[in-house]
Amino acid sequence: MPQPSYPTDPPVSVTAALARRVLDVCAALARYTQTPGSITRTYLSDPARQVNAELSAWATRLGLAVRIDAAGNLRARLESRRPAAPTLYLGSHLDTVPDAGAYDGVLGVVLGFALVELLAGTPLPYSLEVVGFSEEEGVRYGVPYIGSRAFVGTVAPLLELADRGGQTVREAIVGYGLNPDDLPAARAEGGALGYLELHIEQGPVLEAAGQGLGVVSAIAGQDRVLLEFRGHAAHAGTTPMDQRHDALAAAAAFVVEVERLARTVPGLLGTVGSLEVQPGATNVVPARVRCSLDLRHARDELRAGALQTLLTAAERCSAERGVGLSSEVRSRQDATPMDARLRGLLHRAAAELGEAHAELVSGAGHDAVIVAERMPVAMLFLRSPGGLSHHPDEAVLEEDVEAALRVGQRFLHLLAQEEVG
Amino acid sequence: MPQPSYPTDPPVSVTAALARRVLDVCAALARYTQTPGSITRTYLSDPARQVNAELSAWATRLGLAVRIDAAGNLRARLESRRPAAPTLYLGSHLDTVPDAGAYDGVLGVVLGFALVELLAGTPLPYSLEVVGFSEEEGVRYGVPYIGSRAFVGTVAPLLELADRGGQTVREAIVGYGLNPDDLPAARAEGGALGYLELHIEQGPVLEAAGQGLGVVSAIAGQDRVLLEFRGHAAHAGTTPMDQRHDALAAAAAFVVEVERLARTVPGLLGTVGSLEVQPGATNVVPARVRCSLDLRHARDELRAGALQTLLTAAERCSAERGVGLSSEVRSRQDATPMDARLRGLLHRAAAELGEAHAELVSGAGHDAVIVAERMPVAMLFLRSPGGLSHHPDEAVLEEDVEAALRVGQRFLHLLAQEEVG
Repeated sequence: MPQPSYPTDPPVSVTAALARRVLDVCAALARYTQTPGSITRTYLSDPARQVNAELSAWATRLGLAVRIDAAGNLRARLESRRPAAPTLYLGSHLDTVPDAGAYDGVLGVVLGFALVELLAGTPLPYSLEVVGFSEEEGVRYGVPYIGSRAFVGTVAPLLELADRGGQTVREAIVGYGLNPDDLPAARAEGGALGYLELHIEQGPVLEAAGQGLGVVSAIAGQDRVLLEFRGHAAHAGTTPMDQRHDALAAAAAFVVEVERLARTVPGLLGTVGSLEVQPGATNVVPARVRCSLDLRHARDELRAGALQTLLTAAERCSAERGVGLSSEVRSRQDATPMDARLRGLLHRAAAELGEAHAELVSGAGHDAVIVAERMPVAMLFLRSPGGLSHHPDEAVLEEDVEAALRVGQRFLHLLAQEEVG
Repeated sequence: MPQPSYPTDPPVSVTAALARRVLDVCAALARYTQTPGSITRTYLSDPARQVNAELSAWATRLGLAVRIDAAGNLRARLESRRPAAPTLYLGSHLDTVPDAGAYDGVLGVVLGFALVELLAGTPLPYSLEVVGFSEEEGVRYGVPYIGSRAFVGTVAPLLELADRGGQTVREAIVGYGLNPDDLPAARAEGGALGYLELHIEQGPVLEAAGQGLGVVSAIAGQDRVLLEFRGHAAHAGTTPMDQRHDALAAAAAFVVEVERLARTVPGLLGTVGSLEVQPGATNVVPARVRCSLDLRHARDELRAGALQTLLTAAERCSAERGVGLSSEVRSRQDATPMDARLRGLLHRAAAELGEAHAELVSGAGHDAVIVAERMPVAMLFLRSPGGLSHHPDEAVLEEDVEAALRVGQRFLHLLAQEEVG
C-alpha cells in the first residue's frame, strides 16, 4: 500500500479562525443547562441530549458516522479506508458539575471535532473516533466515570445505583430512549491505537510556568480517607488543660502534619478539605471531629508511604490527648501513567511546532484513568487562567486553543506516519 | 445589745437527713420542665413559675417573707430583729440550659433554704435573704444574668431584647403577671453584707483533688473572640502545595498554638470550640474558616497578654500561607475576685469542721460576677462527679451536700460573731 501524503500544517489563519469557532461552540453548548443562569448538565439530562444533538449535527456535516451508545456517550467515527485499521479515540466528557464553567470536558470533545475538520479529508491509516463521554463528574449518582466505564465494559455493577429521585442508572438509560441490553456494543474495540484526551488543566501550574500546553506524564493516584477523632465534651471554663481530651486539638495537629509532609515530599498533594466539629459550641471542648484526607501522588508507593506516615501521625496526635481515632479509606485509585509512545508523539509535535509546553502530573482524575484499563492513553492540557475550574469564571485562552489544534493535528500526522512506517 | 448565743453544730444525724432532703427537693424540682423526659427551664416559663411556687411554700413554712420581684427572681427574707441590720444574700439561679442536670443553680437555692432551716430560729445580727435568680444561663434571650442584673439595677438595657418568638423581656415580664415598672424594687439594698453562692463545680478539679468542697478564689475573666481565616478555594488535585492559600491549614496551626500556650501558662484556659470550614468539600482546598476562641484566666493582665500572643500567632499562621485574617472580640468579662473577708470565713468554717476543701478558680461565670458590682461576693463549690454539668447525668454526692450544709451553717455563725463582735 502506498504511503499517503499528508498536507503540511495549515496556515495560521485557518487554525486561528478554528480556535475562535471552538470557543464559540463551547459558549453555545453552555446554554444547555438544567439551571438557568448557570451551567449544570448531569448524566442523561435533557440538556445532555441537546448537546449530543448539536455535536451530532456537526459530526454529520464532517462526514462522521454518529451514534449515541447505550450509556449515552456520543460516538462519531471516521473510518479509515485501510483494511483492519486500528482506532484512535479522541475526546473527553460532556457532563458538568453544578454551576460549572464552559470548558471542563466539553472543550476536549469540541477540539476532537475541530481536529477532524482540520484533517479536511486527509486519509489516515487508522480510524478516528471522537467520543463525548456522557458522565465523568459523578454528580447524579455519586460515582464518576459512568460513560467511560461503559466504554471499557465495566459499567454493569453501577446499573442499579439510584439517584436522589430514586431512579436507577438502568432506568435513566431506558428513560433516555436507550437500551441497557445494548451496553456491550458501547465497549471500545480491542487493539485500539489509544485514547487522546484534551482537557483544561484545572490548576495553576502551566500559567505559573508561562506555558500554554502541558503533556501529562501521569494521572496521580489518590486516597480519600475519612478520619474520626473522638474526645470528651467538657466545659471550656471549668476543665483544666491537662484534664482535656480535645478532639479538635488532635485533629488540628493532624492537619498541620498533613500540610508539613505534603510540603516536604515533592509531588505529594495532601488536603484536609472537610472538617466538622461536635458539639461546635464556643464554650465546650470539642468531643468529636470528623475530617477528610485527600492524598495524591503520581507514584503509588510514595503515596502509600505518605498515607502510612500520616495515619501514624494521626494516632500520635490522638494518643497524646487521650483522644480515640478511627480512619477509613473511602476510595483508592492508583496512579495512571500515560503511554510512553503517545506521550512522546505529543512532545515531538509540540517541539516541532515550537509551541511552549511543559510536562506535568494531573492531580485530577479524568476519563483517561478508566480508558487506560483497555488501551494506551495520553492527555494534553491547556492552561487554565487563574487555575480556575468547576467555576463560572473557568476560562481558556484562544491562543492556547489554537496551539492545541496545531499540536493535535501534528500529533495525528506523526501517528499516521508511524503507523504506515 | 446582748450578744446572742448560737447553738453548737447540729448533730450529724440532722445534717445527713437534711442533705438527703436537699437532694430530694432538687429531684422534685427537676420535674418542672418544658421538655418532657429531660430538664429544660428557661426564663419566665411555666415550669419556672412552678419551681417558684414550690420553693415559696417551703420558705413560707420556714417563716420567711416571700415575694417574686419584677424580674421573676424568688426573694425569701428572714428579717433580723436587730435595727438597721445589713443583709446577707444566699442563693443561685433556678433556670437551666436545655437538657440540663438537676443541680446546676437549683442546688444553691435549695441549700439556701436548708441553711435557714438549720438555723432553726437562731437570731442573727443580719437579715438573711435567699435569692433564686430567674435567669442566668442566657438561653431564652441569648444574654445571661437577666435575674442578677435586675438585682443590681442594670437590667434596663435588656428589656427590649426579643426571644425567638419575638417576645421582648418586657413583654415576658408582663405576660408572667409582673410589672416592669416595679424593677427598681428588685434592686438589692445598699450596704449589704454580701452574697454567698453555693454551686456545683461543673468541672473535674475537686474530684481530681479528692476533696468535696472548694472555696472560690476568683471567677476567671473571659474573652470570646471570633476569628476568620480567608484563603482561596482551589482544586485539591491540581494545586501544588506552594501555590495554596489554605484557610484550614492556617486555622489548624492557630488551634495548635492556643493549646500550646494554654498548657504553658498556669491557670490559662484556651479553647477553640467552634470551627467551620468552607466550602468543606473533600477535594477542595478550604477557602474560609471561622472559629471561636474562648480564653479565661483569674488574672486579667495575664489573660490580656495571652490574647495578644495568640492574635499575633494567628497573624503569623495566616501570613505564612498568604491567608487573610480578621478577629473580633465578641465579649469580654474581667475577672471577679471573691471578697477576702467572706472567703476567709468559708476557709475558717471548713477548717474548724475538718471538712476537706480546696481553693480554686471558677472558670465558669456565675451570678456572683454580676452581684459583685454591688456587694462583696463569695462562692463555695461542691464536687462534680465526673466533672459533668449541663448534662442529664450531672450529679452531686450526698456527703458533699452535707459538708456544704455544715460549712454553710458555721459560716453563718462565724459571720454573726464578727458582726456582733
